[in-house]
Amino acid sequence: MSFKVPDGFSVAGVSCGIKQDTSKLDLTLIASDRPAVAAGVYTQNRVVSATVVFDRTITPCKNFRVVVINSGNANACTGEQGARDVAQMAQLAARAIDAPAEAALVLSTGVIGVYLPMDNVDAGIQTAADRLAKTETALIAAAQGILTTDTHHKLAVRELTLGAHQIRITGMAKGAAMIGPNMATMLAVIMTDANLTKDDAQRMLGEVVAETFNCISVEGHMSTNDSVLLLASGAAGGETLSGADLVAFHGALRDVCTELAMAIPGDGEGVTHRITIDVDGCKSREEAHAIAKTVAESALVKTAVAGADPNWGRIVSAAGYAGVAFDPAGVSLSVNGFQLFDHGCPVEFDEASVSTSIHENRETRIELTFREGAASVRFWTTDLTQEYVRLNADYHT
Amino acid sequence: MSFKVPDGFSVAGVSCGIKQDTSKLDLTLIASDRPAVAAGVYTQNRVVSATVVFDRTITPCKNFRVVVINSGNANACTGEQGARDVAQMAQLAARAIDAPAEAALVLSTGVIGVYLPMDNVDAGIQTAADRLAKTETALIAAAQGILTTDTHHKLAVRELTLGAHQIRITGMAKGAAMIGPNMATMLAVIMTDANLTKDDAQRMLGEVVAETFNCISVEGHMSTNDSVLLLASGAAGGETLSGADLVAFHGALRDVCTELAMAIPGDGEGVTHRITIDVDGCKSREEAHAIAKTVAESALVKTAVAGADPNWGRIVSAAGYAGVAFDPAGVSLSVNGFQLFDHGCPVEFDEASVSTSIHENRETRIELTFREGAASVRFWTTDLTQEYVRLNADYHT
Repeated sequence: MSFKVPDGFSVAGVSCGIKQDTSKLDLTLIASDRPAVAAGVYTQNRVVSATVVFDRTITPCKNFRVVVINSGNANACTGEQGARDVAQMAQLAARAIDAPAEAALVLSTGVIGVYLPMDNVDAGIQTAADRLAKTETALIAAAQGILTTDTHHKLAVRELTLGAHQIRITGMAKGAAMIGPNMATMLAVIMTDANLTKDDAQRMLGEVVAETFNCISVEGHMSTNDSVLLLASGAAGGETLSGADLVAFHGALRDVCTELAMAIPGDGEGVTHRITIDVDGCKSREEAHAIAKTVAESALVKTAVAGADPNWGRIVSAAGYAGVAFDPAGVSLSVNGFQLFDHGCPVEFDEASVSTSIHENRETRIELTFREGAASVRFWTTDLTQEYVRLNADYHT
Repeated sequence: MSFKVPDGFSVAGVSCGIKQDTSKLDLTLIASDRPAVAAGVYTQNRVVSATVVFDRTITPCKNFRVVVINSGNANACTGEQGARDVAQMAQLAARAIDAPAEAALVLSTGVIGVYLPMDNVDAGIQTAADRLAKTETALIAAAQGILTTDTHHKLAVRELTLGAHQIRITGMAKGAAMIGPNMATMLAVIMTDANLTKDDAQRMLGEVVAETFNCISVEGHMSTNDSVLLLASGAAGGETLSGADLVAFHGALRDVCTELAMAIPGDGEGVTHRITIDVDGCKSREEAHAIAKTVAESALVKTAVAGADPNWGRIVSAAGYAGVAFDPAGVSLSVNGFQLFDHGCPVEFDEASVSTSIHENRETRIELTFREGAASVRFWTTDLTQEYVRLNADYHT
């Protein structure tokens, strides 16, 4: 599939010298040719980037025109200077496309505690504004301009026909939690030409993020900069979506976000396995989520998968300390389709077969079933390898 | 200091073939020559060993006579067979010292999901009963009989004079969370000849565990078997402790448990640094504990210490996702006495000096200060090294 920019938007990605390696893009501009709806969901960390402080006072809004995103510098823990820099970036981006200053959003990702080189940022915004385009090349450059330690850019597109109108949803994402040395953040921006009210956009984004980006983890370290934006130009035409059309859009938005979210642990540092954890039979989705997240973040579960060890004891005991009440006699577990634990008791299984299955597949599937209710969740994480530790510890060696 | 058994107790440690390596001790007996007080604090995991189910219905009690502890097999996730085995171990231990069956406790640590070799356990209990002694040699053997992947036994002793009576407190401990391949559990048993009521014993043990064993973490994986017992024979004589004497005893008990708790992360697998985290200036001890534990369990903080990287951003941002409300502008941080962050702003510091200080000392000190209140906590953890991952993933390679 070719990646296309939804109607109403144009994009650019450039290098302006924020990153030391000038062969890497580090500034992206996404502009709407008309006032668009913008919704945002942000990190729950108490220590946040100046960009998060800035954007969350603006979204949701319906006068959005441009977002400037830099990589290589998170503008976090930068005090009043950081706040001034964000305001200036918004002003520069708005002025570059002849929009009012209050129509601009800002995202940053990269090193914490370092001031932005504002001269470079200023020049970068001008260059990017000159290069704004609707081409696939521009879209890929824009998706590259937001990366830090990612090994590849992450794009997802869905198209759907609603009545007479062809709707496109195009999303880009980067990172995973705080996977890199000194680096922070997962960022995602979803563009659509659908006609949405800002309230619908905000509500849908919140619901979809809960099922997608909030269901991934690399090492569980919540960043200061996590942000997801949904931008809707309405350029596809027609009335604002409602009823079945809105439901169909919601589903397509979930698909785009699922694809982007899954790509993040798939690209985690030093990762040799992506792990999908399905938790079923819980009292509530919150309880299922708490169990899945606890299993996903257990270093012992993650190292077991890295070592192709079908160690059901680590998985079951991790579930046990998620802070969720359950009957241990109701717990069953399978890994890659092999049942290892059945209603509270270990099952005889061929360790070599299960181990080979884990070893030979990059995807590992953990299915944990309880008998407390009907709620379920799907969660994605990574294994934990020596290479991850080397990458994150290798500072002075 | 030589390690002595408190009056009223005798101990033994033997090898009975639960561990494959028969040069390693795997069964310990601790007996009281008279009915003693026993208090217990156990894992909060929902999935627990049959021993935890058994012991927590018995403690606190004042008719304790014997505890049998095996290592190499956790007797967890072993269903009805596991429950029968625990009951039988209690019966065998009680019979071996001519005590009533209800006077016996049982602790286990080791592999999950495997049935105990009860013939070996039976023979081991008989041998241990024959060897019960009050010597330092017997005490060290008993401390060795409870180890799994620990590299050395862990003992701590305090003596205090209360009025005319000489009181001794002798504790032993093993493990740390779930640090080993397939291994579980931290266990500790504290013996004293002090005369305590069972209610005082249980209350003090709960308070002391909250400040000591509940303030350590290796990888944060809560085990199915964690148990701490306080056994008080009263053989030192005198009335049951009260008033200032009880306060003095409480302090000495805390000292013993602090020393044992600190020894556990000090002996974690693949560890190159023990990290002490002091969190001050919080609204409550619970909030300080939540922040310290979140920092302690951040893989990014732990890998940074392993790499001698004074990465204050990882520490401050970990504090930010502990689920505790605080003013980021009130946060200050020092590492090994070097101030890195002051009231919400990074401080200029000599990275090379701080890095050298981390690199050249096995102990790392993190001090995080907030301005929310007067509550504080001290927490101990380890760094995260490639060797830890190798040990825990190296199953099929």
